[in-house]
Parts: sequence; structure tokens; C-alpha cells
Amino acid sequence: MLKPTVNCGELRVTDKDREVVLAGWVSGWRDHGGVVFIDLRDFHGKTQVVFGREKTGLPEKDEKELIEIANSLRNEYVIAVKGIVNLRPEGTRNDKLPTGEIEISARQINLINECAELPFDLKNPDKVGEETRLKYRYLEMRSGKLKESLALRHRFFQSTRNFFADNGFIEVETPFLTRSTPEGARDFLVPSRINPGKFYALPQSPQLFKQLLMIGGIGKYFQIVKCFRDEDLRQDRQPEFTQLDLEMSFIDEEDIKKLLERYIQSVFREVIGVELEIPFKRLSYSEAMDRYGTDKPDLRIPLEIINITDLASNSSFKVFSSAASCGVVKGLKIPDADEISLSVINKTTEEIQSLGAKGLAWMRHKKDGLHSPITKFFSEEELKEISSRFDTRRGDIIFFIADTEQVVGACLDYLRRTFGKPSENVFMPLWIEDYPLFEKDDAGNPTPMHHPFTSPRSGEEELLEKEPFAVKSKAYDMVLNGAEIGGGSIRIHSPVLQNRVFKILNITEEKARQKFGFLLQALSFGAPPHGGFAFGVDRLVACMLGINSIREVIPFPKTRRAYSPLTGSPSDVDKEQLDEIGIRIVDFKKD
Amino acid sequence: MLKPTVNCGELRVTDKDREVVLAGWVSGWRDHGGVVFIDLRDFHGKTQVVFGREKTGLPEKDEKELIEIANSLRNEYVIAVKGIVNLRPEGTRNDKLPTGEIEISARQINLINECAELPFDLKNPDKVGEETRLKYRYLEMRSGKLKESLALRHRFFQSTRNFFADNGFIEVETPFLTRSTPEGARDFLVPSRINPGKFYALPQSPQLFKQLLMIGGIGKYFQIVKCFRDEDLRQDRQPEFTQLDLEMSFIDEEDIKKLLERYIQSVFREVIGVELEIPFKRLSYSEAMDRYGTDKPDLRIPLEIINITDLASNSSFKVFSSAASCGVVKGLKIPDADEISLSVINKTTEEIQSLGAKGLAWMRHKKDGLHSPITKFFSEEELKEISSRFDTRRGDIIFFIADTEQVVGACLDYLRRTFGKPSENVFMPLWIEDYPLFEKDDAGNPTPMHHPFTSPRSGEEELLEKEPFAVKSKAYDMVLNGAEIGGGSIRIHSPVLQNRVFKILNITEEKARQKFGFLLQALSFGAPPHGGFAFGVDRLVACMLGINSIREVIPFPKTRRAYSPLTGSPSDVDKEQLDEIGIRIVDFKKD
Repeated sequence: MLKPTVNCGELRVTDKDREVVLAGWVSGWRDHGGVVFIDLRDFHGKTQVVFGREKTGLPEKDEKELIEIANSLRNEYVIAVKGIVNLRPEGTRNDKLPTGEIEISARQINLINECAELPFDLKNPDKVGEETRLKYRYLEMRSGKLKESLALRHRFFQSTRNFFADNGFIEVETPFLTRSTPEGARDFLVPSRINPGKFYALPQSPQLFKQLLMIGGIGKYFQIVKCFRDEDLRQDRQPEFTQLDLEMSFIDEEDIKKLLERYIQSVFREVIGVELEIPFKRLSYSEAMDRYGTDKPDLRIPLEIINITDLASNSSFKVFSSAASCGVVKGLKIPDADEISLSVINKTTEEIQSLGAKGLAWMRHKKDGLHSPITKFFSEEELKEISSRFDTRRGDIIFFIADTEQVVGACLDYLRRTFGKPSENVFMPLWIEDYPLFEKDDAGNPTPMHHPFTSPRSGEEELLEKEPFAVKSKAYDMVLNGAEIGGGSIRIHSPVLQNRVFKILNITEEKARQKFGFLLQALSFGAPPHGGFAFGVDRLVACMLGINSIREVIPFPKTRRAYSPLTGSPSDVDKEQLDEIGIRIVDFKKD
Repeated sequence: MLKPTVNCGELRVTDKDREVVLAGWVSGWRDHGGVVFIDLRDFHGKTQVVFGREKTGLPEKDEKELIEIANSLRNEYVIAVKGIVNLRPEGTRNDKLPTGEIEISARQINLINECAELPFDLKNPDKVGEETRLKYRYLEMRSGKLKESLALRHRFFQSTRNFFADNGFIEVETPFLTRSTPEGARDFLVPSRINPGKFYALPQSPQLFKQLLMIGGIGKYFQIVKCFRDEDLRQDRQPEFTQLDLEMSFIDEEDIKKLLERYIQSVFREVIGVELEIPFKRLSYSEAMDRYGTDKPDLRIPLEIINITDLASNSSFKVFSSAASCGVVKGLKIPDADEISLSVINKTTEEIQSLGAKGLAWMRHKKDGLHSPITKFFSEEELKEISSRFDTRRGDIIFFIADTEQVVGACLDYLRRTFGKPSENVFMPLWIEDYPLFEKDDAGNPTPMHHPFTSPRSGEEELLEKEPFAVKSKAYDMVLNGAEIGGGSIRIHSPVLQNRVFKILNITEEKARQKFGFLLQALSFGAPPHGGFAFGVDRLVACMLGINSIREVIPFPKTRRAYSPLTGSPSDVDKEQLDEIGIRIVDFKKD
């Protein structure tokens, strides 16, 4: 077998006359009257190989055979070729290809493997459904966007690990076969054969273990690790996902934020050559909700929500005044909104109704001021005040939602993302901070906004039992271009305080001991102050690439039904396997 | 809270007079008549802190309070201290400690957390059982050997990833929730909730995925990844373990061996400062079995097995002659064996009987030649020949085993490891190669010596059906100091050849399609020649540290019963959780 001496992306004009061997896949071939051109492709690029243009100096029989083999090649055949680097003739150079100025004049060829009929055109994988692409993921990998994504993901890993190692962090592996951590989602369970009737859980995050590492004196820990959540899958969720997990001792929120800003700055610089400014912008949770209706605003969109509850409360427009008395009335101006026709507004109304709103009011700034079916309910003075608050110009439209704080926020966030035009190739990271420690569950009881190990803000501990919803936490999220790319907090390091929080969360002592007694016990053996962070690597890498779906940056993702069309997993298993682990599948129809 | 400005391992004489803050754990305290000494410890080391030896310049009340707090400290309390770096008085310096020439004269202290009564003395964790140590693993981490192991493991990871990245490999993550790969051990199964009655399997290795990556054109892949095997646990096995996995295209065995020799040389140099010579020694499988009785010989032990079947076949010692006719007779010389008394021999006899041998013959070289209860069966000439073959000197003993090749090998390997004295702090890596492609299963049928994707040696394909056991494979293992630290092979890249091998292995077409149809299909779409390797990271790191048990180098290992005393996993789960995934635990008593 001929063994490659160079790859398919590296030869240049300066390599002229070198004898080289290349190996890879035929990614295009054409026969120009006895002269055969092959585009040979590997991970690094493409190189043109020519058969029969010039005399090889081979015996005639061998030369004939060479051309015959070249003629038999088809796309995705695997070959190795020995030849001489030549400059391409004037007028046939390809500026788009790094190797576009040279070609290989073939002297010898090994046909290594053939290729069956392809299930789709590798140059246009988008033309087939995602299930087909996932089934033949390895074919999609050979070229195009997916290959670039995987290469970038690799550089991201290297850059990330080197940053944290250089900053004194050590990488420690936490267990995969473990006990569930109570992070809100369902665990994947793993039956134990050696301990019949018992189950491991796959980790939703290494949260408890990284806290144990801090208690164990590992001052700075990091890990890039798979985590698992058995959720009903939404567009951008996968049952297994990659997390960049870290934790530090003897630090506060500022230390972590500063370090992570340096990290993000460094990884963007090294991996995609983008220079980010630090420090990042910061928004409190309540300010983000007020101005953007969400705690993960896309700051590339300059639009902001304006509150007009005060104006609305005195309005003769009943929808506004009644909402103002028990909720809020807020609006969002879309500038230069001529393309938002009445039919667009009607369609949008239906969409925001599915988010819980009763309706969508709007006013359009025309030649002579605000116009709308509802302007008749407003005095000229009121309209002027509205126009002034929103700073409207001719062509602008204002959308209003009158409802509860929550519905208004969700709808205006939706409108902002729908009609706002984010600048491309711009990265706008920010911190969201000052989260409440608790939010209300369906029954109105406190439930953790992040997780039950999050520390309340210093000085607010005494409010815990009296006014739990007034207590802020030491949690912080990092948001980039409208996606939450990570979150973290300072943790509770006092066993007494941790027990108080469990009590407020209505976690009984018995349940606390059963679920995470080992953490409570560990806290009693000299826990240092500590805190940390976790990035969603799939989302972060997708953001860097400007890609929406995390499936596009995961080597072997599953469908939204948590299914792998490639391997056919999950699959049936033999009854003997179930016998060994002592479980039975329940027939729901009979049960 | 005082925040540390330096760590507990970095201050030196040159830091004299600096004001610093340190934080950590009290790892020792003593009161010398009003002067309190504290050893303060963190991940980086220990520093001595002194209270009350010299005037602090503080108001008397504050100084009194400082001493009071210092007096209240106990081991493993968490504190932060501000103070001045002083040189220790002559005669009190500690040469063993890198910070042993200085101490901190404390000006201010924060008592951050107390510590409950410890379950064991952190300075002597070995004094309690392993279950207790694993239950409080975080305490064991604070000092001593475990901390060093974890720090080394981190350096190993960094060095390894940088080596492979520098050599053009890219890191690609393969799935954890997947379909079982048939690697001989049981799979851990994960019930799917979204696809009721179906199961994922946790990967025993990324074998099939890395082959798909090669077919996908990712020319060089590596990953450090957790793998899972549901085995009955032996001394040195864990249900989850860490693998360094890699694969390359368009290469042969030599390319992989050369690369991995450079890798091992580089990682030993960078991580433990040991210089290994390359190329490594190579032994064929059959030569290793002949000379050492095992395919993972510890070459630090110079002893080798000597075959005397030819001599034995004519011996009047029936045990030898009859074994020689249907098996082999081999021996091992232990030099300077005076301490191997008759009672040691008797005990050893019992041990090798448990390995299947019927008995243990021996001869001792005394002043006037070989002596033994069996020498009477041998002529003087025969004894001379034996002495000459084994090159015996006064004080040596020869052990003989007469049995099948397999039993003889196993017993002499055992004797070699029992009585051979490996040199310490020496590393003797070697390659084992030329493995047979198949071995016989219990029924005498071919079963893969490695796995069914291993390529037969070039030119031996035509023997596959006719003489399967004569075919050698392109597999190779790396052995270090008696442990198999990794293995790999060139894989089959022809779908036709892969189907032939399945057929020989009695894997029906249907079963092949069902189990790994996706691999067979992928092979048909233009698979390049490829091969790879996988290192057992836990074992390799343990070898580097000269530690026998891999549990000592795993942050959170399980016991031999696959149980975590720390988290109490595997554990019972709620019936609701089982309902959701549609399974029931079978009550074996009723079933």
C-alpha cells in the first residue's frame, strides 16, 4: 500500500517538482478526452490529481493501466496516489482552494476501497431529512460544515483545558455510575446486576462531587464531562450533553466572574480569532426582565421594553386600564416597520396568544403621528406622551401587551426576537446576577431558582424564614447572543445554613439525609467557602459558530425522540440480559 | 472574609517581611506557653503560622482576641490568616518542608468553619479499612498519597492531550447512551422512558464509533473517555474506567507503534521526569508465552522459563515422561534461593495446585550439584544437563511443572512473579505482537483473541476458512512492568473480509446485521485502511506511580462489590421512577 507523505490540504507552489503520495476520497472526477481529473479529499483539504496529461515515463502498459484505473474511479472511492507536484496551467488555477495553484501528475495509484451508491449527495446534505443525515453521520463528516464544527470543537477543548490548567486548576474525574443529584430533571437509571434491585443514576451534573472536591482541599477543579437528563426533548436539548464544569475555594462571585471573562476572552481569541472586550456588561435579573422580558436577552438586538402602566391606568381603553390595575402594560417599538403588514400583525397576534396573552395592541407612526384601531380611546395628549416615551419616528410600530408581568415579559421577548434584527458576527456576552434565591412553585411554595446548594446573599440570611422570596442569591448566569451559555453560584458551606434552606424547601430531615446526607456530613468536616460554574459546551460552541441547533456541533447526536438512527439505539435487548439484572418490562396495556 | 494572596506552599526566605493572607486547614497545632503554632495546609503545601511570639502592634484587646481564637483551633478547622513572613529562629527550621525556613507572624484571623470529630487520622488513612476511606474520600484527599495521585493524573491528562493534539489528532466525543458493542463483557443497560421497553447500553469502548470516524474521514482521532463493563469485579477492575482511545487512517502497525513509543516516552518525561529508551523491546505472543508463561511479562524480573520436554521424555521419572508425551515440562531457576525453605515450597505447591497443576517438582543446587527428592530418578548425566541448561550455581533452586502448555505457563508465570525480585523505579515497556487471530472457545470453535474487527495478517486471508487457528492478526499490546497497559490492532476495512470473519465466528448474517449492521454498511461506503489503540489510563497512571491498585489513582472509586460507600449507590429508587420507565424489579423468590 502506498502511504501518504503529505495531506490533501498542504501542497503549494513552492512544492513544485516534489514527488509525493496522497491518500483520501475521490470527491469529484471528470474525463476531458483521455485526461482524467480527480479531486482527492481528506480531513485537511482537497488536491487535484491528473492522469494522462503528460508523459509519465512509465512503460506504455503501465501507463495504460494507470489511466484505466483512473477511469474506473467514482465519487467516494478510497485511493492512494503517487505523483509529482506541478503548477496548474495558466487559466485553470482555483483561487478558492488553498491548493488551487498546483496539481499532482499521477505516476502510480492504489485503489483501496470502492463505495456503494450514496444515500445523499455529500455536497448537499441539507437536501435530505435530518434522520437520514444522522443515520449516515460518517458520510456527512467527510466534508462541509460538520467537519469544520468538529475541528473547531477540538480546538475549543484544547484551548479550554490549557487555560484552566495554566490558571492552577486540576482536572478531576467524577463518577458516571452514581446517585441522583436533585437538579429538577429526571435521572437516567442503570440497574445493578451485582446489587439486584438497586440502581445507579447517570449524573445530571457533577454538582455534589465538585463540592466534595472543595471540601477535599482540591482548591481549583475543572472537567469537561458528559451529563445526562431524561427530559422530554425540546429543539435544543439532548439526553446527553457536554458540560465544562469548574469549582474554586476561598473565592467570591467577583473572582469567578473575572476569571471566566478572561477565559471566554481567551477561548474566543484562540479558537475563532474574535477579540471580546472585558469586563462584560452586567444586568440584575429584575432589570433584565424589565428591559427585555427575559433573563437571557440577545443584546445584539437594540430594542428595549417600555413600561406604560402608569399611563394605562388612567386610560379610557378598558383593556389597558383594567390590566394596569392588577398587572402591567408594556410596549416595544419596532423601527422602520413598514414590512409589518396587517396580515403579519394578525399572524403575530395568534402566536402571542399561544404564549398566554389575550391580544396584541399596536400603534403605527404615520406621517401625522400614531395611528391604530385603538387610538380613538386615547387623547391627543396621551398619544403624544406615548410617542415621546417610545421616541417614535415615521414608519415605526409599537406593540403593546397588557397582562400579568410574566405574560407581558414572555410576549414582548418573543416580539423582540421575532422583529429585532441581530447584527451578524457580533458577540454580546453579559452577566445576569442578583437572582432571587427562591421562586414560587405551582402551589406558591419556595423552590430553588438555581439549586438548593446556592448561597443566599451575605447579610440576607436572617430573612430566609420570614421573607424567603425577598432573599437574593449569589447565583450568576452568563448569556451570549440570547442563549444562556452557563451558570453558577457561590455555594452554602455551613451545614447549619444548608439545613435551614432544606427546611424552607420542605425537604424533611429524613429525605435530606437519604438524598444527600453525604454532602451534609462532608460540610461538617471543615468545608471552605466555595463556588463555581458550568458551561453548556454544545451551546457555547454552537454560538461561536453562529449555529442555532446544538445537534450540528455534536459528533453523534440523537433525534428529538432521543433516538440514534445510526446505531438504532435504544433497542430491544435479550430476555437473558434482563434476567441477569432482575428486571421486567411492564406491559402497559395489561398493567 | 480574608482572601488568600498566596498559597500554603509557595513562601520562601526571599518573601521575608511581606504581608500575606493564607487560607486552608489546620493540620496541626501546639501551644508552647502562650505561643500558638499552627500548620496551615492547602492543596499546595503547608505553612507554619505563629500567634503571640512577637508584638503585633495591635491594640491589647485585639491581640488577646487573636490568641484566644488561635487557642480554640483544632485539626481541620478552616481559617484564613493575615500576617507577616518571618524567618524561623535558628534551630527551628524544617528541611523537609519547602516552606520550612519561614513562618507567618499572624496579625488577623478568620475562623471560617469548624470540623466535627474525624472518622480517622488523616495522617494515617491506611489504619482504617478501605470502605471507611472511600466513605470519606474527600478527607483522604486533603493530604498524602491520594492528593499526589490526583495531581499526577491531572498532569498526565494535560501532557497526553497536548501530545496528540500536537501530532495532528483531533478529540471527538462518542456517545454514552448507545448500542452495545460486543466486547465480551456484559453491558450496563439504561432503560429509555421516551421509547418504552427499549434500552441504551453504556459503551464498553468507543470501538465502532472510532471506526466510523475513520470512515468519516477524521484521519486521526483521540479521546480520553469513560467506558463501562458489568463484570464480576476482580482486584483491579472497576465498573467504570478511563480509556485513552485513538485511531488513525492510512497507516500500518509500524506507524502506530512508533507514534505510541514517542507518546509514552514524552508522557513519562513530562509527568514523572523518567527517560525511557525507544524503540521498545518486542516479543511475539508465542515467544512471550514460551519464555515467561504470560503475554504480559514483567521484564524487570530477569528470570526466564527453560523448556526441558526433550530431556523429560526419556526420563525414568514418570511424572516427567508422561507429561512430555502429551504436554510439556518446563522449569524456572530462582537464584540465591536459600530463603525458599521446605515449608515455603509446600505452601507454593498448594498455590500452584489451585492454578491447575498436579504438583511442583524442584531441585536445589547444593555444594556438590543438584539435590531433591526426585534426583534419584535422574542419571548423573541428566542432572548435569539440567544444571547446564539452567546454568545453576550453588544456592539456586529450579522449579519444574509438567502439564499442558497452558497450566505450565500459568504456574511458572506465577512462580516468576512470586520469587522474582523486580527492580524498583525501573520501567520496562514492551510490545507483544503476532497474536493469533482466533483462539478456541470452550467448544473448540474460533473466538476472537482481540475483537471481531481485527485484521488478519497480510497474505494470510486465504487460510481463514481452512486453518483459522493458524492465522495471525495485526493486533499488538503494550505491556509495562507486568501489566497490560493497552492494546490495539489494524482493523478490517473491507466489508467482504469482515463478513467472512463474522461467518467463521458463527455470527449469522441476521445477527451481524442486527448487532453492527451499521458498521458493515459504513464499510461499504469507502472505508480507508485504519487501526488504533486504547490505553487503560487507570492502570497506566498506577504504573507510573508504582502503585498496585487502580483504586488508589481513581478520585471516587467503587468497592469490589461495585458499591460507593460515599454516596450509597447503587440505591433503591422510588416506584414512581420505575413506573415512568416501565420496568419492574423481579422478586427472585417468587419468580
